[in-house]
Amino acid sequence: TGVTLNNEGKGKRVLVVGGDGYCGWASALHLSARGYEVAIMDNLARRNWDQQLGYDSLTPIASIHKRVAKWKELTGRDITLYLGDICDFEFLAEAWKQFEPEHVVHFGEQRSAPYSMLDRERAVYTQVNNVSGTINILYAMKEFTPDCHMVKLGTMGEYGTPNIDIEEGYLDITHNGRTDTLPYPKQGNSFYHLSKIHDSTNMIFCAKTWGLKVTDLNQGVVYGVKTPETSLDETLINRLDYDSIFGTALNRFVIQAAVGHPITVYGKGGQTRGFLDIRDTVRCIQLAIDNPAEQGKMRVMNQFTELFSVNELASLVKDAGAKLDLDVQVTSVPNPRIEAEEHYYNAKNSKLKDLGLEPHLLGDAILDSLLNVAVEYKDRCDRQLILPANAWGSSGVSRHFVGEKAKSI
Amino acid sequence: TGVTLNNEGKGKRVLVVGGDGYCGWASALHLSARGYEVAIMDNLARRNWDQQLGYDSLTPIASIHKRVAKWKELTGRDITLYLGDICDFEFLAEAWKQFEPEHVVHFGEQRSAPYSMLDRERAVYTQVNNVSGTINILYAMKEFTPDCHMVKLGTMGEYGTPNIDIEEGYLDITHNGRTDTLPYPKQGNSFYHLSKIHDSTNMIFCAKTWGLKVTDLNQGVVYGVKTPETSLDETLINRLDYDSIFGTALNRFVIQAAVGHPITVYGKGGQTRGFLDIRDTVRCIQLAIDNPAEQGKMRVMNQFTELFSVNELASLVKDAGAKLDLDVQVTSVPNPRIEAEEHYYNAKNSKLKDLGLEPHLLGDAILDSLLNVAVEYKDRCDRQLILPANAWGSSGVSRHFVGEKAKSI
Ligand SMILES: NC(=O)c1ccc[n+]([C@@H]2O[C@H](COP(=O)([O-])OP(=O)(O)OC[C@H]3O[C@@H](n4cnc5c(N)ncnc54)[C@H](O)[C@@H]3O)[C@@H](O)[C@H]2O)c1
Ligand SMILES: NC(=O)c1ccc[n+]([C@@H]2O[C@H](COP(=O)([O-])OP(=O)(O)OC[C@H]3O[C@@H](n4cnc5c(N)ncnc54)[C@H](O)[C@@H]3O)[C@@H](O)[C@H]2O)c1
Repeated sequence: TGVTLNNEGKGKRVLVVGGDGYCGWASALHLSARGYEVAIMDNLARRNWDQQLGYDSLTPIASIHKRVAKWKELTGRDITLYLGDICDFEFLAEAWKQFEPEHVVHFGEQRSAPYSMLDRERAVYTQVNNVSGTINILYAMKEFTPDCHMVKLGTMGEYGTPNIDIEEGYLDITHNGRTDTLPYPKQGNSFYHLSKIHDSTNMIFCAKTWGLKVTDLNQGVVYGVKTPETSLDETLINRLDYDSIFGTALNRFVIQAAVGHPITVYGKGGQTRGFLDIRDTVRCIQLAIDNPAEQGKMRVMNQFTELFSVNELASLVKDAGAKLDLDVQVTSVPNPRIEAEEHYYNAKNSKLKDLGLEPHLLGDAILDSLLNVAVEYKDRCDRQLILPANAWGSSGVSRHFVGEKAKSI
Repeated sequence: TGVTLNNEGKGKRVLVVGGDGYCGWASALHLSARGYEVAIMDNLARRNWDQQLGYDSLTPIASIHKRVAKWKELTGRDITLYLGDICDFEFLAEAWKQFEPEHVVHFGEQRSAPYSMLDRERAVYTQVNNVSGTINILYAMKEFTPDCHMVKLGTMGEYGTPNIDIEEGYLDITHNGRTDTLPYPKQGNSFYHLSKIHDSTNMIFCAKTWGLKVTDLNQGVVYGVKTPETSLDETLINRLDYDSIFGTALNRFVIQAAVGHPITVYGKGGQTRGFLDIRDTVRCIQLAIDNPAEQGKMRVMNQFTELFSVNELASLVKDAGAKLDLDVQVTSVPNPRIEAEEHYYNAKNSKLKDLGLEPHLLGDAILDSLLNVAVEYKDRCDRQLILPANAWGSSGVSRHFVGEKAKSI
């Protein structure tokens, strides 16, 4: 898994907010390998949430300091670190003025739906952290670098599951004989998803009012752990979450398969969602940077490559497991989320393909590669963490602690 | 202006959050006069913002303690006071469990668009205050009083100025041959308006997920100062804001007329909005309480009685002024807001009328009554405060202080 270093992004300064996280770390290395001048900004909150809950990545992740030092050692390329909270504007402003980003890729949010539904305090934290952080970045752009382009990670979950086709951000509506193009009506299904809707609503306004360049990427569920860059050395390995709070569907299923735990499908398993390979996430980010949004109108692109129902995922994992002689069982557990388990779902995703994205498709190859990592590290798996998530209905005002409600259905 | 006390609301416990404010104070007295058991919750933040900016109500408002004591003296009726911040859940929870509201009327937010556009810190404050406070109330309902009905004040400004008719909260959409009823697509034009959109998006989710009873009232611009109850004694008088930050359009115009200042129309003055009399606000609140929402689906009603363009308002004030021998001038000033000054606007408002609302209409009588109060207190007017608001484009990261940017165009 050699990495080709080149200089196609030379001279473009990109600030990766949330660059210590799953998508952010892979994106930062992808860009650095291609010659973009990269800085990572992160408050390492994500590592702290794991520690508080007693969770850990299946893969052993190094500290951000060691990660960046190893990358420098292997490639000779520098990544600047700004470790602090984007909700702390004094910190953000100092770092911003020093680095003067031409693009900011904003991954830096609390991104787990179950975490946001653990209890009141975490619900409020999720919305305040995500909404304030994004407002602060918008003000930093306006004030210090008005030409800076923001690439903001949203989620396909902002659209909910409407009974009509899901377009990319906007919808042409004819009503009582008149027509307008309006923001696509959104319906979130957790305080996390709602926070992303709030961000998008705020960003439309700031792009318009201050003439900023803003791209909103409504990302599907990301799967996989390896990119060429993160595979270069174990110190660079990316996180792989499998717990019920931070693990996303396919990653969780594969790890369940690897350790011989039945795949836990929520309810009927008819929930259909958009998915993409982490190797496509990093390419989408590069495409968005290389083709920036225009000033004044927020651009929205749906960032996923394929649609699958939860049942389809489960049987794909079962089939892939069979090829590695794993006997994969599938079991249905009560759905902690309050959501439609059978619904219409047809979402568009042509804009990133129009910019040149050639998707990795979820075939056996990909499952094998994810499965192989899972099998390699399966001794690190804490089987307790495989249990289903906290129920949406149980989100109350008393704090959830690990081992207690956080693990109950 | 006698007040008829009766007991039609007897036994219904209503918590009025933001009950020291303009709409909240009038609503609390209206309900108390009718026998509802009323408690006011307020952190008095609104008075503090005035103090920091050097602003004051044209009418001399008494402290909330004196207000409530005077009401008791005149009517024999008790209003319980809970003075604290709804963002402080420890406070909110204690008060909630003590009072056990059957209805909560939630006025308690930072409600000025120009205030939210003064600077970054106030933009973030507005959204955090409003969004967290509302989430806290939703959790208190779920946890302590699941049958409680929330009457939440939103604003007509959540809809923006789309080129199609504005419905009440939801829109039937047909797209590519399929149909769904979805939340009406919203476009806010200040961090304040955006905060209300966030609230509505959150409330739809909580109503659905936890089976709560929630009414969202998208209120138009309120005008007038007198209700029968607040007119009973000068200690009960309501606030009348005329500064550029907290004063709403018609109230400001009337006071400008009363003190002989030209009416300041922003830009072309073609902006059309929904308006209502404060005497209708209090009746709408009572109607919403007496006809509560059903569990599980947020009800939305548009709360305004008439539509006017800014130019129409200005000439109505000019005509009314003439009758009091006031020579009212109208002048156009640069629009601090970034908004369409000429646009289609057709908003629906049948639901509250269906519940029995008989609107006060904006005729000369009403202008006279508002004008007379303005003339009565015109010596309290600080003419400096009449200047136009801060420009949306000037909202930056450095703090606005009074006398400086807050008053510049
Ligand atoms: N992983 C997915 O499947 C997926 C799907 C759709 C959208 N997204 C979005 O992509 C983004 C990245 O997701 P991820 O899976 O890499 O998440 P992650 O939790 O692994 O990474 C997020 C990073 O942001 C940092 N962060 C959070 N709040 C911060 C703050 N206030 N200041 C500074 N740093 C802060 C965290 O410490 C963490 O390192 C998120 O915005 C997420 O909502 C992810
Ligand atoms: N006045 C209008 O024309 C108008 C129009 C549309 C909608 N509204 C909405 O109606 C509601 C009331 O408006 P108003 O004009 O009476 O505003 P106001 O500012 O006079 O009253 C709001 C009250 O809420 C209190 N408050 C704010 N944050 C609080 C917190 N965190 N905890 C406790 N109390 C808090 C303030 O101290 C104040 O007394 C607002 O939500 C506003 O958005 C008003």
